[in-house]
Amino acid sequence: MAGNQPPRVVIVGAGFGGLAAAKKLADQPVEVTLIDRNNHHLFQPLLYQVATAGLNPSDIAAPIRSILAKQENCRALLAEVTGIDKESQQVLTSVGPFDYDYLILATGATHAYFGNDHWEEHAPGLKSIEDALDIRRRILLAFEKAELAESEEERERLMTFVVVGAGPTGVEMAGAIREIATRTLKKDFHRIDTTTQSQVILIEAGPSVLPPFPPKLQRSATEQLFHMAVDIRTDTRVTDITDAGVTTTMGFIPAETVVWAAGVAASPLGRELADDCDRSGRCPVTADLSIDGHPNVFAIGDVASVVDAESKAVPGVAPAAEQGGEHVVACIAADLEGLQRPTFIYKDKGSMATIGRSKAVAMIGNKIQFGGTAAWALWGLVHVASLISFRSKVRTMSSWIWQYLTDQRNARLITGNDEL
Amino acid sequence: MAGNQPPRVVIVGAGFGGLAAAKKLADQPVEVTLIDRNNHHLFQPLLYQVATAGLNPSDIAAPIRSILAKQENCRALLAEVTGIDKESQQVLTSVGPFDYDYLILATGATHAYFGNDHWEEHAPGLKSIEDALDIRRRILLAFEKAELAESEEERERLMTFVVVGAGPTGVEMAGAIREIATRTLKKDFHRIDTTTQSQVILIEAGPSVLPPFPPKLQRSATEQLFHMAVDIRTDTRVTDITDAGVTTTMGFIPAETVVWAAGVAASPLGRELADDCDRSGRCPVTADLSIDGHPNVFAIGDVASVVDAESKAVPGVAPAAEQGGEHVVACIAADLEGLQRPTFIYKDKGSMATIGRSKAVAMIGNKIQFGGTAAWALWGLVHVASLISFRSKVRTMSSWIWQYLTDQRNARLITGNDEL
Repeated sequence: MAGNQPPRVVIVGAGFGGLAAAKKLADQPVEVTLIDRNNHHLFQPLLYQVATAGLNPSDIAAPIRSILAKQENCRALLAEVTGIDKESQQVLTSVGPFDYDYLILATGATHAYFGNDHWEEHAPGLKSIEDALDIRRRILLAFEKAELAESEEERERLMTFVVVGAGPTGVEMAGAIREIATRTLKKDFHRIDTTTQSQVILIEAGPSVLPPFPPKLQRSATEQLFHMAVDIRTDTRVTDITDAGVTTTMGFIPAETVVWAAGVAASPLGRELADDCDRSGRCPVTADLSIDGHPNVFAIGDVASVVDAESKAVPGVAPAAEQGGEHVVACIAADLEGLQRPTFIYKDKGSMATIGRSKAVAMIGNKIQFGGTAAWALWGLVHVASLISFRSKVRTMSSWIWQYLTDQRNARLITGNDEL
Repeated sequence: MAGNQPPRVVIVGAGFGGLAAAKKLADQPVEVTLIDRNNHHLFQPLLYQVATAGLNPSDIAAPIRSILAKQENCRALLAEVTGIDKESQQVLTSVGPFDYDYLILATGATHAYFGNDHWEEHAPGLKSIEDALDIRRRILLAFEKAELAESEEERERLMTFVVVGAGPTGVEMAGAIREIATRTLKKDFHRIDTTTQSQVILIEAGPSVLPPFPPKLQRSATEQLFHMAVDIRTDTRVTDITDAGVTTTMGFIPAETVVWAAGVAASPLGRELADDCDRSGRCPVTADLSIDGHPNVFAIGDVASVVDAESKAVPGVAPAAEQGGEHVVACIAADLEGLQRPTFIYKDKGSMATIGRSKAVAMIGNKIQFGGTAAWALWGLVHVASLISFRSKVRTMSSWIWQYLTDQRNARLITGNDEL
């Protein structure tokens, strides 16, 4: 600390973890600087809805400045962090260096291609609004091109959509693409029949969809996807992706549109903090979420590899990041009062995935597990409640009510269209 | 006509004119092909709202396929038209040639820089959703950069916004940027005061704002802009635009953000139809809106230069395009029944421009002219009523009600952000 100055807390990343920490610090005698390379906080669980033209970007994103406007001790900055100097205690950014007394790294994860980065061009992932709009454009354009296709073969390839990875994101994308094809677009084309002629193939390397979920819910999800005519291919690994399609251990699939939902890697900034990051780039943290040897440097959320005080490996989900952020604030508060820091214990509040219009699976703790319409309603409520601004809640609810009643999706624009 | 086949009508452009013609042809024994290089119909009068983060793109755009889904005799195609062969009666496109028995060119206008195309990079126009999102990003980023500016000089340059051209578009943009600065963002920044430190300069080569409007309304608009602290500079011409700012006949203005609302040129396809297009590229048409010597080829809307049967020069406004489209259908219908074609007479239904939250000017015919809140309410109603889908109407109304009550704008995202 510099003399009488309040301690400077620098938070990198305004996702679930970083924002939770920033807001919780409102009552502490510190000065907070929250740095993000975007001007908005993104509600990632609903990105797949933007990607499938169901919601607008602004329905699931809120300007960081708005969220923090009333918080006197916090300023938000739009900048790219280029490095971290633990010795001089500085964060290096595109707009200059920032000194810190405490640093919280909360930069999350990005998609990973297992060493095959050249696949990214043909199979975008889904981590940002730009990703979602890119995928949206590809899906809508594929149908437009199919309408004009000269050959049966070409038309089939254009109407084949492959989703790689059957975790929650992949399952949700697969279900939503089927919905567009079977409901939204079904009357819009003259030469193609989107309902019967399009196919969605969901590829999973492991033996089941939704790997982290219990078997009962895996079965429920599989059944619901089957009823939606999603072609599930488990125990299948992708070996190559080109603009012609996807090569797998079970053969080649000609496909115009491929979405990557199979792997994540931690933000590269994790490696600025530690030398012993794991294979995904996540940096290991101690029991209070600080970096070994640097008690004033913390890592939370998807960029950190956390095993909590009850020896539970903490999953890369939003509630875990938020709890991590709040825990770091508890540590800082303890420091300022000369008390001992608490250790981190993760409270699992349950998981959910939605599979289209009125189907979902949900579990709460390890006991309550259910699927179908009840799960879907709960999923909807939880997600809307979690959206950060009242405005987003109202707009998202109304978008979904509209979609449910009319089968129309609200954001069917092809924008940024250079190729025709 | 090819034997027993119904006549094939090809319409290029799904703006106000092309869409009006397509829909009106529903009752005719023809086959319609509507070609556009975007998948959506755009309500251009509200583009400035997208550019100033007040509305989402999907609020003012509707998928063409949805609009025409129920029309059996019309198909929509996503393609770029590359040429027109009047001899073989073919439209050449990025997906192949299309034969026509009737052709309607309705490709509208784009922005023009009076021979200085290199200005476009620094001063985008406002004709498409991509334009609007580009301008939105520039405006929001300018404030973000100003927050971090090192010098007074740099901060002032970053918070200076220049709008070139004081027609309705320029006036609306200028007012809306002042609104963002004085209402929406006023609490969001710590180092800058957006209300007192930002300035919006509206440059107009002629002697008054809103050149096509009567003097009484010009005065009303000037007064309202003055109250919003928009700096109006008439009798001022732009001579250069660089990334540092704008050079005018009255001196240099350092400015980060420049919006071009000063000149339009007809779509280049006009020159495919006629050799004697005017200086803006608009092609001349005969009394029934067909091209001289080619009675089965029509041009309507901003791509055409129209003087109607009462010798009125027809302005480049949406109602004129729609009336043109409907007139062409009347001509085709007359042909099919062996009757004489009607001549085109334009009915002026009035003009409007809005200048921020509760101010506007409006005139109906040449008699009723009024400004202020009543005009603004009327403007709102007319624009919402004109939006093509019920969904857009509801969303836009709710966005505006929200904005009015809370000063929050609904789409404050910076997306597609490569530069930081």
